[in-house]
Amino acid sequence: MTYCVGLKLDRGLVFMSDTRTNAGVDNISTFKKMYTWSKPGDRVITLLSAGNLATTQTVISILNERTKIPSERAPSIFDMPSMFQTARLIGDTIKSVIHDVDSDGQRADSFGASIILGGQIKGGEPRLFLIYPEGNFIESSPDTPFFQIGEHKYGKPIIVRSYDPAMTFEEATKLLFVSFDSTLKSNLSVGLPLDMQFYEVDTLKLGFQKRIERNDPYYEAISEGWSQALKLAFQSLPTFKMD
Amino acid sequence: MTYCVGLKLDRGLVFMSDTRTNAGVDNISTFKKMYTWSKPGDRVITLLSAGNLATTQTVISILNERTKIPSERAPSIFDMPSMFQTARLIGDTIKSVIHDVDSDGQRADSFGASIILGGQIKGGEPRLFLIYPEGNFIESSPDTPFFQIGEHKYGKPIIVRSYDPAMTFEEATKLLFVSFDSTLKSNLSVGLPLDMQFYEVDTLKLGFQKRIERNDPYYEAISEGWSQALKLAFQSLPTFKMD
Repeated sequence: MTYCVGLKLDRGLVFMSDTRTNAGVDNISTFKKMYTWSKPGDRVITLLSAGNLATTQTVISILNERTKIPSERAPSIFDMPSMFQTARLIGDTIKSVIHDVDSDGQRADSFGASIILGGQIKGGEPRLFLIYPEGNFIESSPDTPFFQIGEHKYGKPIIVRSYDPAMTFEEATKLLFVSFDSTLKSNLSVGLPLDMQFYEVDTLKLGFQKRIERNDPYYEAISEGWSQALKLAFQSLPTFKMD
Repeated sequence: MTYCVGLKLDRGLVFMSDTRTNAGVDNISTFKKMYTWSKPGDRVITLLSAGNLATTQTVISILNERTKIPSERAPSIFDMPSMFQTARLIGDTIKSVIHDVDSDGQRADSFGASIILGGQIKGGEPRLFLIYPEGNFIESSPDTPFFQIGEHKYGKPIIVRSYDPAMTFEEATKLLFVSFDSTLKSNLSVGLPLDMQFYEVDTLKLGFQKRIERNDPYYEAISEGWSQALKLAFQSLPTFKMD
């Protein structure tokens, strides 16, 4: 399984993804699920993927034009005039990759994958999309300012309750750490390390990025602190009275 | 959808269930998902159901021997010598109900249902079971002292973090209200009113029970209080620093 979140703030975009993939609980590996294409001053595009690993890796390889010899590669993702066109390119790619394996009579479900796409291209606004395995996609809005893919349920309530578009990147990181920690505590198939990345509006360059490894002191402080804080929060509520 | 929880405490058992059923989001009804058989001094047996409503209602009708004319009904659930035998009876019933509709060539998934069964029969301990649509079942233990069925993910993290077997019934109610509120806030297909019931160890009589209606003052206090308390808890955590 997987857990990835893309969050749109007034200040920019925040991305976080886990790195665990599994084929059964006895076959667990670490794979990066965050990919970035950046050309400073022109564009920064970040993609998070969930679902069948063969599908998502093929999509990335095609986007990187690995179908050509190295000297001829010029990823068309750098030629797209807008984030909308980029989302269409990626949507078409994922649809055709799934169709290729699927058309040999295999079940569709197992090859499925979803993608969160965010970034900014010179001349446009920062945008955030959720791309479905069918190739179509939706864009974030003030009403739905974040997307989650993979094992999204455990970590959703805290985002719903605490998200604020005026948050700083640091506060958003804290929020996502809590959301990821709730997910990790509930589902073995989502695991550390985590990848995180910020994109600041109109900078058109790669923002802060970090891999959060096991034993990261801040992650541990949040994980333990949240357990304690939740207990106190819970105690602060009025007690039920039978009547 | 549905959300039901059965919780085992040192003091006894706590049950809570929502009442929303839906066939699509435009066809929503209220149905009780909590059923109780009690004979004071002899046994109290409570059942929570999730899944296909036709399946669960048929299971309940068969358990109540509605296949017979009213004067001949003597539900065999009152004759079972132990909770384990009761779980087997219910497991066999659900399996055969699903098999009956299923064998006409329809898909199995859509007729599925799960059941939480808890209670005490004279001479035995209070016990709590989770019964699968296949008819087999598992029993709670100190390591897994609660079962959830239906839309269980949103409300799990708070139970995992705050459950304590030494809790009072009142504290357990608070815990389950928070868990249900997180679920209701995240999934439209789980809805008020809620049914709740306590069973106190060795009393062999029905404990406190209540239906929590829309606008219940305690439920509202928990729902609003928890939002506030979570915000404070979140603020109390250390802030991330880029380095």
